[in-house]
Amino acid sequence: MKKALILLGCPESPSQTPLAIYATNKLSSLGYDVTITANPAASKLIKISDPENKYVQNMLDLDRCLDSLEEKEYDLLLGFVHKDAAASFFVTFYQILQTKSIALVFEKDEKLVEEYAEMVKESTDAEIIAVKAFHNPNPVKVQLDKVLNNL
Amino acid sequence: MKKALILLGCPESPSQTPLAIYATNKLSSLGYDVTITANPAASKLIKISDPENKYVQNMLDLDRCLDSLEEKEYDLLLGFVHKDAAASFFVTFYQILQTKSIALVFEKDEKLVEEYAEMVKESTDAEIIAVKAFHNPNPVKVQLDKVLNNL
Repeated sequence: MKKALILLGCPESPSQTPLAIYATNKLSSLGYDVTITANPAASKLIKISDPENKYVQNMLDLDRCLDSLEEKEYDLLLGFVHKDAAASFFVTFYQILQTKSIALVFEKDEKLVEEYAEMVKESTDAEIIAVKAFHNPNPVKVQLDKVLNNL
Repeated sequence: MKKALILLGCPESPSQTPLAIYATNKLSSLGYDVTITANPAASKLIKISDPENKYVQNMLDLDRCLDSLEEKEYDLLLGFVHKDAAASFFVTFYQILQTKSIALVFEKDEKLVEEYAEMVKESTDAEIIAVKAFHNPNPVKVQLDKVLNNL
């Protein structure tokens, strides 16, 4: 079974948790065994959002995941990038994993969207979805669907 | 079957969608038929968060819900209050429904938590859960569990 890793950023974005569940469900339906890795705050939001584990089967603490991460351990990396720190984490995960990668860049400030997309572009060959978005998840969802349906 | 109405506020809070799903699941397990009412942006986040409708069975547009709302139509009102507008909506729903009501007041600014709680207290006899919280949903969850377990 193919394995996908979803890397979450900081929990401030109201769209992140819903989109993470959505992406998990979508990737599962495409045959991936999906793991979400996130810091403790973002992880809590996922757990409360899916209290009966109907969507999310595997969660890993971000630091522990990074410590043990190995090249090609996952067939797909999907990273949520809406902060500097998240962009750095994405680049780090990309460089270790050396696998097919997608960066989901979304922010309410268009300049920041460009800045984070540029950070990812400079250091990786990841496919980049860059959308100005904050609490309306639909523009991100539409772009994400396009990319995932072409996997 | 008892009926519960969950009233959501604006979608900016990263905890709202996860807590709404959590509360829906909890109330369902307590035997309630649960309906969520929200504005279009908050509704989109719920739908993306529960893409297979594993948790949320009924959603109503906020304006339409309010237009047709009748006294005692629901046995329980649970309102998310983290803005002025949400406090006003909660009071309006309370006054029409005249039923057991719980206000879930959470905000990152403690002064605003007090202010919104005061707004609700002045105009309703609702039970009020007031917690300083933004992207960590656990303090709200703990208080919510206490109140729901005593229903």
